[in-house]
Amino acid sequence: MEYDGSSFSGWQRQKDKVTVQGEVESGLSKILSQNVNLISSGRTDAGVHARHQVANFKTDRNIPPRDIKKALNSFLPKDVRIKSAQSVSLDFHARYSAKSKIYSYNIFTGEYISPFKARYFWHLSSDLDFYKMNKELKYILGRHDFINFQAKGSSVKDTERTISSVFLKKYGNYYNVFIEADGFLYKMVRFIVGTLIEVGRGKFEPKRLKSLLQPEGELRRGSVAPARGLFLWKVKY
Amino acid sequence: MEYDGSSFSGWQRQKDKVTVQGEVESGLSKILSQNVNLISSGRTDAGVHARHQVANFKTDRNIPPRDIKKALNSFLPKDVRIKSAQSVSLDFHARYSAKSKIYSYNIFTGEYISPFKARYFWHLSSDLDFYKMNKELKYILGRHDFINFQAKGSSVKDTERTISSVFLKKYGNYYNVFIEADGFLYKMVRFIVGTLIEVGRGKFEPKRLKSLLQPEGELRRGSVAPARGLFLWKVKY
Repeated sequence: MEYDGSSFSGWQRQKDKVTVQGEVESGLSKILSQNVNLISSGRTDAGVHARHQVANFKTDRNIPPRDIKKALNSFLPKDVRIKSAQSVSLDFHARYSAKSKIYSYNIFTGEYISPFKARYFWHLSSDLDFYKMNKELKYILGRHDFINFQAKGSSVKDTERTISSVFLKKYGNYYNVFIEADGFLYKMVRFIVGTLIEVGRGKFEPKRLKSLLQPEGELRRGSVAPARGLFLWKVKY
Repeated sequence: MEYDGSSFSGWQRQKDKVTVQGEVESGLSKILSQNVNLISSGRTDAGVHARHQVANFKTDRNIPPRDIKKALNSFLPKDVRIKSAQSVSLDFHARYSAKSKIYSYNIFTGEYISPFKARYFWHLSSDLDFYKMNKELKYILGRHDFINFQAKGSSVKDTERTISSVFLKKYGNYYNVFIEADGFLYKMVRFIVGTLIEVGRGKFEPKRLKSLLQPEGELRRGSVAPARGLFLWKVKY
């Protein structure tokens, strides 16, 4: 599925809040006349978008996936669309079966941002040093302990992840960061991008990302980028 | 200025409604500490967008236009941005001084529309005959009486307008209609596009646009396209 996260309180179902999981489960429950629990590739925060989110569920109803997809799209608000639906083996798990995930982050520097882009870009008024950022970003490639790149209060024990691919592109005033990894900690991409930007605008010295990847003693943190520029781009199985 | 019309009750100021004119005038009144009345190139309906809307106002305050622009953008919601501001001669009138206006209309045909496009396209599930539509659209070129292409209850007396340029483009499932004229009646573009689409999907016979341009006897109307696909594209002076 894909969704514009602007109007949702994130992926995860919450009482009295409009969430993507809540909307999709509610539509599926109507179509299948039974309670449905979705397992997704992972949560996304309030305001984070998805071009390609994957979720699975179990049902004993025998309705062809393409009919479920069609009916579901007619129930869902316009800011969520099911792109495709298929039957999978019973041991498929949208999170555990995933081999890697790709996130994309959009940044715009310039005096003002178009209303047609404002929901999908982090708008910065300062100039960025593309060369410096490009060099900085390379430090995260490979296997590292990302304990300094997660939200406070996170209970995850294994904080090592492998970044297999990363790149920064620039088109005029538009910047885009692509990161592929075997998994991501909570807010990890936003911490990486936030820190990268502080290096790019000269607030942090170069090699800040590198030093945060060598955790020792007290926990330190980078800077966190806002949700609106972030897209879950692809989940690979 | 440009605006995403999705969340506005149109351009024109209305009591207890959020409108573009209302927001801009309210920001200007704060900056200039005096009441401001905007004159725009024309109204846009609820849900209609603008890439290039022009408005003027009079003030006796001596603040440089670029400072007004900057301050105004900081007051305005993200879905309206002032692109540029300049001093003009006292006889400039955003509507009467306009030489021509261009509107653009977006259509998408395909099974489902991306949440990132849904606010800016008319989504149709039927296929369209591009060749037939392209031929049909040509009938509106030149000077015609568009009395059949305006909303009911309109009080405009002179319903003749000159269309100087019109074209239809297709990129895969995306269609775009561009129309330039010396002026437009209320909902005129939406009536033209709505009727054109009915010809394109075979509901109306070809030459329907042509026959509606030869008003005789009882008023007839075409079909009206939804607001969300429509953009005020440019105003020429």
